[in-house]
Amino acid sequence: MTVEVISIGTELLLGQIVDTNAAWLSARLAEVGVGVYRRTTVGDNLTRIVAALREALERADGIVAIGGLGPTDDDLTREAIAELLGEPLVLDEGEAARLHEFFATRGRTVNERQLRQAMRPRSAQTIPNPHGTAPGLYAEWHSKPIFALPGPPNEFQPMVVDAVLPRLAQRAGGCVIRSRVLRLCGIGESDAEAQLQDLISSSNPTLAPLAKLGEVHFRITARADSPDQAEQMIAEMEHAVRARIGAYIFGVDETTLEQAVVQSLIEAGQSLAIAESCTGGLLGHRITSVAGSSEVFLGGVISYSNALKEALLGVPREVLQAHGAVSEPTAQAMAEGARQRLGSWWGIGITGIAGPGGGTPEKPVGLVYVGVSDPTGTVVKRQVFPGDRATVKYRATQYALWLLYKGVKHGGCASLSPL
Amino acid sequence: MTVEVISIGTELLLGQIVDTNAAWLSARLAEVGVGVYRRTTVGDNLTRIVAALREALERADGIVAIGGLGPTDDDLTREAIAELLGEPLVLDEGEAARLHEFFATRGRTVNERQLRQAMRPRSAQTIPNPHGTAPGLYAEWHSKPIFALPGPPNEFQPMVVDAVLPRLAQRAGGCVIRSRVLRLCGIGESDAEAQLQDLISSSNPTLAPLAKLGEVHFRITARADSPDQAEQMIAEMEHAVRARIGAYIFGVDETTLEQAVVQSLIEAGQSLAIAESCTGGLLGHRITSVAGSSEVFLGGVISYSNALKEALLGVPREVLQAHGAVSEPTAQAMAEGARQRLGSWWGIGITGIAGPGGGTPEKPVGLVYVGVSDPTGTVVKRQVFPGDRATVKYRATQYALWLLYKGVKHGGCASLSPL
Repeated sequence: MTVEVISIGTELLLGQIVDTNAAWLSARLAEVGVGVYRRTTVGDNLTRIVAALREALERADGIVAIGGLGPTDDDLTREAIAELLGEPLVLDEGEAARLHEFFATRGRTVNERQLRQAMRPRSAQTIPNPHGTAPGLYAEWHSKPIFALPGPPNEFQPMVVDAVLPRLAQRAGGCVIRSRVLRLCGIGESDAEAQLQDLISSSNPTLAPLAKLGEVHFRITARADSPDQAEQMIAEMEHAVRARIGAYIFGVDETTLEQAVVQSLIEAGQSLAIAESCTGGLLGHRITSVAGSSEVFLGGVISYSNALKEALLGVPREVLQAHGAVSEPTAQAMAEGARQRLGSWWGIGITGIAGPGGGTPEKPVGLVYVGVSDPTGTVVKRQVFPGDRATVKYRATQYALWLLYKGVKHGGCASLSPL
Repeated sequence: MTVEVISIGTELLLGQIVDTNAAWLSARLAEVGVGVYRRTTVGDNLTRIVAALREALERADGIVAIGGLGPTDDDLTREAIAELLGEPLVLDEGEAARLHEFFATRGRTVNERQLRQAMRPRSAQTIPNPHGTAPGLYAEWHSKPIFALPGPPNEFQPMVVDAVLPRLAQRAGGCVIRSRVLRLCGIGESDAEAQLQDLISSSNPTLAPLAKLGEVHFRITARADSPDQAEQMIAEMEHAVRARIGAYIFGVDETTLEQAVVQSLIEAGQSLAIAESCTGGLLGHRITSVAGSSEVFLGGVISYSNALKEALLGVPREVLQAHGAVSEPTAQAMAEGARQRLGSWWGIGITGIAGPGGGTPEKPVGLVYVGVSDPTGTVVKRQVFPGDRATVKYRATQYALWLLYKGVKHGGCASLSPL
């Protein structure tokens, strides 16, 4: 089965935003055995949108349209589908009620424009949008499925997973496709590939590497006649991969490194406090992005200024004067200060130079010291990360999370020294 | 003049890479007055590529094809253009010599596959590629221009600037397009649009809304005979917009809210310290993502546990017991504690329920109190934000940044009460 993806929005044709939705959707469709025949991007123009929808439906077995479902006059996807189907737009009572409630709980009333979002072609169904006001639409053209979803990724992605993939996978029928992603940290893509070369050449299940910032992912995809058979094939491949590089695998599928860290802390019954300088709060943000992190995460200090490193973390002034804020002793004092001042089992201290300014020959942009402390001791690691300010900040938090994960999993700081 | 952009590559349809070339090219074309009618992505399939090229040329005044010019068997763009033109492929002697030299200087000889890159449709010209082995192609179909360029951005982008834009700008006949984005916070898309209805119906310059998470953008686009005229038209439209909703505009084009906040603090010579609970460090991360923020940002406390709210911020235990951690008095005490304990001019305190758990009928998920404190006083605002955990965290930081921006711009906390 093939579908076409149609991205709608003049801002796309003007190059003001990059269309990440289309690529993300294409990858999800491939995983369930649905091929993308062609992708099209059109502007906010009714005639052009209708033409693009019709042409795509004539080529492929269905379409997914993205964007143009908002409340404003240049949101025309509803009208385009209605014209394609030769149907009027009608008010969906359920969505209208939901909109009234949504605004009522915020002490506001729905205006005419907002209410447009509850309109749908007569034969269409609405697709619930838990994260926004614009519902999606499902309709059929000569029994070919038409999905229309709002563009904001935080609204779009869950709707694809909940409403689009199951229906398309069912239509694709026959052979089932299952996939699992193994997530690695602490090893480079080429090093990992070198150890898996023969497995990567397998045709079914396939093993495909994907390099992410600070991580390497391997996607196992199996095609089989039954779900059980596919799962069995995946399990065998995963076993083979783990036998070689299992030490670097922190999670599977959507498991993030921060989720793995929080889970390991909960299992160990150990708490965490952090002290961030160059990362400025990003480590705390990543940890607290995990629901339930409050069970083990006490909090932290963003000690951007030296005065705060002294006042809130007890970093000795002599250390700051003798070695500087970006130094091994300062990272150690920050990690231990976080533990002691905030009363946690684990303490992390991060200090470095995120750039673009502030670098010197001895202490270049990207230099980061990460201190990890627990009752068994304190370890400080030095790294020089490539990339811009945002990349250095992210890599520093990724490295700190990986050190902590290893430490928790292997019985404390002592286990980190060999790293 | 309009063109269509055709991205060629199965890896795009599989979602293995995001097509950043198409967006980048679209923006450059707009700058020289060339509109993009439609964008298409096709896989490495000769028949489908030829069809996409022909259809695009029938709709628009020319096309730019990206990718499929490499040495491997699935690089089919040369063959597709030759078939479209009904011409054979011939060897371009100049490019062949260049390839031989390229490999000779690396102590290698050109193989058959590499030499394919020097082939071109008989009537086509090659476009030099200073950064790679695959030249681009220029041909004409019924006097409409066809450009074909290699996909690697470091090869693609200079070729666009050197060979594509000048020829298309010349054909476009001087008309230039300029655009500017006005960024708003503190007002919804539909509310803002309601105040600009007559301006939005303008055809040149155009005014188009774009909703972002926690922000609304309005893009002004002007078509004119000269850059000066276009800039003048934009300036007049911007003036008209600002006269109505200027109070909500914090920046233009790429300016982020955190950049606007840091800039306003630098101009006011005022420092900032923060206390984050439910946002867990995201506010600090966003502020420190701005290069130079250390000039005004002292740091903060991530007081996830109540114990830390007391110990590091001096939030009275009685307040926590009487009103709870998520309450107006706690947000006030956090903001004032951040100011006093960290020694800053401005203090911000954020406490709330990010979810998915922890909500009650009185204190639902999404409930957030933001306290803002300066020497003139302290203001606390209550909001209930929709969305998942990540969305609530982001909206809370967006709201806090907006309150701070207003406060700094309008002479202190006293100005925030009417908000």
